[in-house]
Amino acid sequence: MSRNAPIGVFDSGVGGLTVARELMRQMPMEQIVYFGDTARVPYGSKSKETIILFSRQITKFLLTKDVKAIVIACNTASSFALDTIREELSIPVIGVIKPGAITAAQTTKNGRIGIIGTQGTINSGIYTRILTEINPELQVYEKACPLFANLVEEGWLYDSVTIEIAERYLNELQGYEVDSLVLGCTHYPLLRHTIQKVMGPDVTLVNPAFETAKHTKDVLLENGLECSEQMPAHKFYVSDGAEKFKAFANTILPCEVEEAKGIDIEQY
Amino acid sequence: MSRNAPIGVFDSGVGGLTVARELMRQMPMEQIVYFGDTARVPYGSKSKETIILFSRQITKFLLTKDVKAIVIACNTASSFALDTIREELSIPVIGVIKPGAITAAQTTKNGRIGIIGTQGTINSGIYTRILTEINPELQVYEKACPLFANLVEEGWLYDSVTIEIAERYLNELQGYEVDSLVLGCTHYPLLRHTIQKVMGPDVTLVNPAFETAKHTKDVLLENGLECSEQMPAHKFYVSDGAEKFKAFANTILPCEVEEAKGIDIEQY
Repeated sequence: MSRNAPIGVFDSGVGGLTVARELMRQMPMEQIVYFGDTARVPYGSKSKETIILFSRQITKFLLTKDVKAIVIACNTASSFALDTIREELSIPVIGVIKPGAITAAQTTKNGRIGIIGTQGTINSGIYTRILTEINPELQVYEKACPLFANLVEEGWLYDSVTIEIAERYLNELQGYEVDSLVLGCTHYPLLRHTIQKVMGPDVTLVNPAFETAKHTKDVLLENGLECSEQMPAHKFYVSDGAEKFKAFANTILPCEVEEAKGIDIEQY
Repeated sequence: MSRNAPIGVFDSGVGGLTVARELMRQMPMEQIVYFGDTARVPYGSKSKETIILFSRQITKFLLTKDVKAIVIACNTASSFALDTIREELSIPVIGVIKPGAITAAQTTKNGRIGIIGTQGTINSGIYTRILTEINPELQVYEKACPLFANLVEEGWLYDSVTIEIAERYLNELQGYEVDSLVLGCTHYPLLRHTIQKVMGPDVTLVNPAFETAKHTKDVLLENGLECSEQMPAHKFYVSDGAEKFKAFANTILPCEVEEAKGIDIEQY
């Protein structure tokens, strides 16, 4: 495997761009091949079997681009499909759950950690499982916030409606006096100001996108897979709505996205 | 084609059950074969090409059940795929747009009609096109309400947040003094009380689900396709989350749904 090959990154849609953004910031020489499954978004309400099927199709597609590693930049797909995909491939496969969980375990002072995510991620109970493996004494409180991703897609990031919905979702976690809160869906970092406002200044927000990029860098170094020179421009593929995706990507990425290419993912 | 064959009905998910419900009420002897594309829901934000591809796969599946007619119980799919599907099949294919539009044109007194729907339906401009074909003097005001379907799926039908969001979306239409409002997404009839409250008692809500069922009955009669005796129980198929679908269906349908069967729609 060439160290100058690209890193494959995928998500159900645009959310994983928050992970791609951190990868770009922390490893500016690497090339990213991003796939957003915009034809089948969202993943959060879908079953494990369906998410594994979709993830397999996407990794098959990314392998045609000769990627040296794959980052599953989606909490739902990381919850449901990471183990399966990792077993099936010989290159490193990195999910977004564990890096965020480890940081949360290190950050908390009172041992009470909150997790917010999609219905799929929360129902899987994966954060509680991983966190109590790290430290059985941690108390983990999980809460699904299904409308958060929709609010991000509507662009209502700092809105009074968003604050009211956030208060309703987060009230329960405040009652449990969590001092660390994991943003367990890749859309949520875009709501971090509203979430911080509602939770108050004493709660530390953990952004798995940042931690995942850090972990990816470590994995590449350990495997001698970090690139040796400046790589060419990143590439973006989607299963639908390439123009809309491109516009959104250009609002949040540090690089200019000149093209997002539509592909038929069901062929893989 | 046998008159005692079932009627095929499809939607992106559960929304089309509001249409199935009206079909059951108005034609209690008919059998319905329903397909909800829960693995790929929602359709409202996807492109025309993708919606045509999905609709073709679904009609192929329904034809394996020997349906005598197909009702596209989804505004987005009716906007984008009705003409294509109708051309490709020899059985009657009915969409939800035209029946609602005709009723709105008959209902309005001041000639000002409001349309609410998904981004896909509104961007297509199909309601304005059909309504001005019926009567070029009608003034049509369209407004996408992307969060409405999410609020229905969250179950917040009469919620203060839902009222605030409805006020924000509908304020513009109130400014245009519409006296008829078409609920142009199959989820919206479940929000009709909130929408009526915000719009006030002088605005007539048009429910395309009701009008589509009436029109379907007429089409079957015209073609000698109405069933001649009580047919067996309805059948339900989905592309994901069969148990969740079944639970939702049982809350809104007049019949008991004993089973919803998962199928792999991408094989069709």
